[in-house]
Amino acid sequence: MKLATLRDGTRDGRLVVVSRDLRRAVPAGCRRLQDALDDWEWHVPALREASDALNAGRAPQAFDLDPGRLMAPLPRAYQWLDASGYLNHVELVRRARGADLPPSLYEEPIMYQGAGDTPLGPTDPIEVDDPELWGADFEAEVVVVTADCPQGATREEAARSILLVGLVNDVSLRGLIPHELRKGFGFVHGKPASAFSPVFVTPDELGEAWDGAKLSLPLVVRLNGEVVGRPNAGADLTFDFPALIVHATATRRLSAGTVVGSGTVSNRDRSTGVCCLVERRTVEQLEHGEARTPYLRHGDRVTIEMRDADGRTIFGAIDQQVAPPSRCV
Amino acid sequence: MKLATLRDGTRDGRLVVVSRDLRRAVPAGCRRLQDALDDWEWHVPALREASDALNAGRAPQAFDLDPGRLMAPLPRAYQWLDASGYLNHVELVRRARGADLPPSLYEEPIMYQGAGDTPLGPTDPIEVDDPELWGADFEAEVVVVTADCPQGATREEAARSILLVGLVNDVSLRGLIPHELRKGFGFVHGKPASAFSPVFVTPDELGEAWDGAKLSLPLVVRLNGEVVGRPNAGADLTFDFPALIVHATATRRLSAGTVVGSGTVSNRDRSTGVCCLVERRTVEQLEHGEARTPYLRHGDRVTIEMRDADGRTIFGAIDQQVAPPSRCV
Repeated sequence: MKLATLRDGTRDGRLVVVSRDLRRAVPAGCRRLQDALDDWEWHVPALREASDALNAGRAPQAFDLDPGRLMAPLPRAYQWLDASGYLNHVELVRRARGADLPPSLYEEPIMYQGAGDTPLGPTDPIEVDDPELWGADFEAEVVVVTADCPQGATREEAARSILLVGLVNDVSLRGLIPHELRKGFGFVHGKPASAFSPVFVTPDELGEAWDGAKLSLPLVVRLNGEVVGRPNAGADLTFDFPALIVHATATRRLSAGTVVGSGTVSNRDRSTGVCCLVERRTVEQLEHGEARTPYLRHGDRVTIEMRDADGRTIFGAIDQQVAPPSRCV
Repeated sequence: MKLATLRDGTRDGRLVVVSRDLRRAVPAGCRRLQDALDDWEWHVPALREASDALNAGRAPQAFDLDPGRLMAPLPRAYQWLDASGYLNHVELVRRARGADLPPSLYEEPIMYQGAGDTPLGPTDPIEVDDPELWGADFEAEVVVVTADCPQGATREEAARSILLVGLVNDVSLRGLIPHELRKGFGFVHGKPASAFSPVFVTPDELGEAWDGAKLSLPLVVRLNGEVVGRPNAGADLTFDFPALIVHATATRRLSAGTVVGSGTVSNRDRSTGVCCLVERRTVEQLEHGEARTPYLRHGDRVTIEMRDADGRTIFGAIDQQVAPPSRCV
């Protein structure tokens, strides 16, 4: 089952069930994805029925899906927790900014809470006044959406809480981060609104690529049309999703609709490229003594997508351009 | 106008308009506080009318308000940003854990994003397995709830976005914080669910104590019945609410219903006591060479309240006991 949210002028948009090939959609029985998540067992049978009918070509009310009309599948999330599950990324990024590696790096995840209230749709612009000054960068990741999960969840409870899987572009402002993190309280300025994939999908849509804990397929990232990375999201992942959820629930329960991010996908094999510019810049620094790749500029285009073994897009593409803030245009 | 949310078995509860003396209530025209915040100008006239009728004794449908039935006024917040507006607190707490003071301390706020999805009601227990091991502490603060606020808001836009004012107990686990902050990404474990005051109020309820930017009244904190602090929330505040909101919007817009916390209220005059135990412990350490006050224990009771110049409670009391997690009982 694939779910998306159409822009309709309201804050939460209109939930639609999307066909496996992402070309057609039907209105869902409940208006908002949060409503479905709040009462998942109640809503799932009707959603599955709509999905099955749509995929079988038996949905007379189906319409063509316009990717430009999509909001984030969950247009307001009550909690957005992003981790650093791929330690190769952590090692490179911290080296780049001359920060220490935490001694517990290999034992427990690093995680922060981000702005989930105003996520970007898959084709919304990344609005930054001065992207070069602020060091605007992308981070391509896998995310899951959870059901309610109790405080102190077991690994089994954590795994069972995973309802949906998707992709995110966790926009990062590298120029602001060192100063902000020195203050000790984590990110507010350095992590503005993230963009999410056109659809979130139930794990059964992922077949054998999903083992209940991680998604083993290449995540393909393009910058201005050029492929800059295609690391496998199932490789070199030190903390999988149940581990991240267990970590998150140590002192809090999670409410339905919590979005948990894997952290920037990053393989130790450098030939797989990068899912963010700061890694490429760090490698350049190490190899050539200086970073050669600039951060994002106005007009740059970032595309993030994942295809299945048969080459079919799973989540659709996050496809964004960097632009000045619309209020200042 | 004073607003509260009654527990009714749903995630968002039932919005009620509460009388000035907090004794009586009437159902609000819209079901959830978030609905009212999403479309404030539309809902305010009816809410004000209900409030005026209730306070004039002209509300036949009014009923006695049972404080034990109250959830947090906003039972799920899309964003909860807590700052450190009172630098006396920052200086003491960082001294206590041997951490550096950030060089920008006096120029810009320190702020983190907390768990807004599962806030505690005013009399809900603080559930912690081993409060002494984890260093369970309270932090009494003032909060505001905002309307939509654009990215890069001016001070005037920030001030205008303030719709409601309330109190919070920002529960903190001091034993977990040094380790967590060393990882560099801020709090997840160290800041579990916070508890909010019985009602949030519109600024006009605060009279001259509210100047549009800060609330100048003593915040009274009791531990097991003993007053441990009564600092004035309008004194020694380096960053007022518009300043905090401006800071928050530097790289993100805020959506309606964002909750912004002042940070632990803390006066430089030590005779006003403390709004958290770690400050008292730090002063003891400085004066006696050792901290004498223990952190919270199971059964301890924390009460946080603010009264107006005539001694009337404004927000009602946050009144919580520390208890083992209910799932483990």
